Amino acid sequence: MSTVTKLELIYEGKAKKVYATSDPDCCIVSYKDDATALDGLKKGTIAGKGAINNRMSNLLMRMLEQNGVPTHLVEELSERDTLVKKVEIVPLEVIVRNCSAGHFAQRYGVPEGMVFDEPTLELCYKNDALHDPLLNDSHALALGLTTKQELETIRTLALRVNALLKDFWKQRGVDLIDFKLEFGRLPDGSIVLADEISPDTCRFWDSATHEKLDKDRFRRDMGGVEAAYQEMMTRLTKPNGGEQA
Amino acid sequence: MSTVTKLELIYEGKAKKVYATSDPDCCIVSYKDDATALDGLKKGTIAGKGAINNRMSNLLMRMLEQNGVPTHLVEELSERDTLVKKVEIVPLEVIVRNCSAGHFAQRYGVPEGMVFDEPTLELCYKNDALHDPLLNDSHALALGLTTKQELETIRTLALRVNALLKDFWKQRGVDLIDFKLEFGRLPDGSIVLADEISPDTCRFWDSATHEKLDKDRFRRDMGGVEAAYQEMMTRLTKPNGGEQA
Repeated sequence: MSTVTKLELIYEGKAKKVYATSDPDCCIVSYKDDATALDGLKKGTIAGKGAINNRMSNLLMRMLEQNGVPTHLVEELSERDTLVKKVEIVPLEVIVRNCSAGHFAQRYGVPEGMVFDEPTLELCYKNDALHDPLLNDSHALALGLTTKQELETIRTLALRVNALLKDFWKQRGVDLIDFKLEFGRLPDGSIVLADEISPDTCRFWDSATHEKLDKDRFRRDMGGVEAAYQEMMTRLTKPNGGEQA
Repeated sequence: MSTVTKLELIYEGKAKKVYATSDPDCCIVSYKDDATALDGLKKGTIAGKGAINNRMSNLLMRMLEQNGVPTHLVEELSERDTLVKKVEIVPLEVIVRNCSAGHFAQRYGVPEGMVFDEPTLELCYKNDALHDPLLNDSHALALGLTTKQELETIRTLALRVNALLKDFWKQRGVDLIDFKLEFGRLPDGSIVLADEISPDTCRFWDSATHEKLDKDRFRRDMGGVEAAYQEMMTRLTKPNGGEQA
């Protein structure tokens, strides 16, 4: 086990707190049960979410690491706390979509559930005051948010993460519809996957029934929010669980 | 002169009418003085605009043709009417920016006038009901709006148009800030530049004073709208006019 000590709170986000530690190259991320949606207009609590998102993120990041995707993960410390490498977050939300849903369906006037021949990859400028506007590679470069080389790395990693996660969840009876990633820069300038991978940041649909097993249940007041998170946690550790059901 | 005959109106847009002709491969575009802005909320008339936009578009498209950019232009028929090849419009607005202004500045929270190291190229889905939303290449492909090969051609042509227009206007004391292009498919599937190139579709700033010489004067109620269009028409036919001023 790690011997690092949790020090002061350095950042509190919507769903996580980040603490400094006795190791200057590491932080502790602490997952909360708090949930927000609709650009912060909707607030609530999803009981047990923090522990589920912590566990799921760590298991998935470990799987991705084993498949050649560098991540910020160091070590799970407790039910809600994880030690991660300290990174400078690239101010881009990287969204990969295999199927139309959510903002994509709204913005382009198509129904949800349209399966794409190839995944789409989109970037949003991480900026709450501007409501995280969509941008493309040339915009991100013009705004000085990243470099061509970083964008190339991020694109390659994001598509690799998609292929790995899609396959992982398919074996558990879950379709990976879309998800949001964030990447960070280590002190040596290299890019690693950061943030989390959870029902807060992914759309998961049951492969057979298309039932939503993610934060859309909270966003859209569908009920069964906690049960959906719990179900995803069960599937995580039970391959082919979906197909047996 | 052409011997084609103008037949029935087949489409009326915000600033142009399109007529069928006796040649099934051609249309006549007729430029109006009507102007709209702010997603159609603002309506008005700019006296003389139709004739200026017709003349400017034709002169610029001719110049682009001479420099290897295929366009829809066939022949100017009169002060407001031009014979063009009939195309199927690719439902994308292709926006090239050399400098921050307008929606870019608003969307990303930066001041106008920030000069980019490299031009940005953005796509919007031409769809009035959806308010022409921004999209990227992967979205355009997922929605089936175009093909990878067409996108490649459109990108190459748009950047070539930018280089040629930027240089053309620089010699006339005008900075080309940004502009919107549309492309069309000919019956053989090849892509040509269509629509218009005018103060309605470009931002033009005087190189010395940064005075706006385009439709922003109408959009922003700045006054001097007709004078700005007239000034751009004068500069068009008078190289180095700006530097002598």
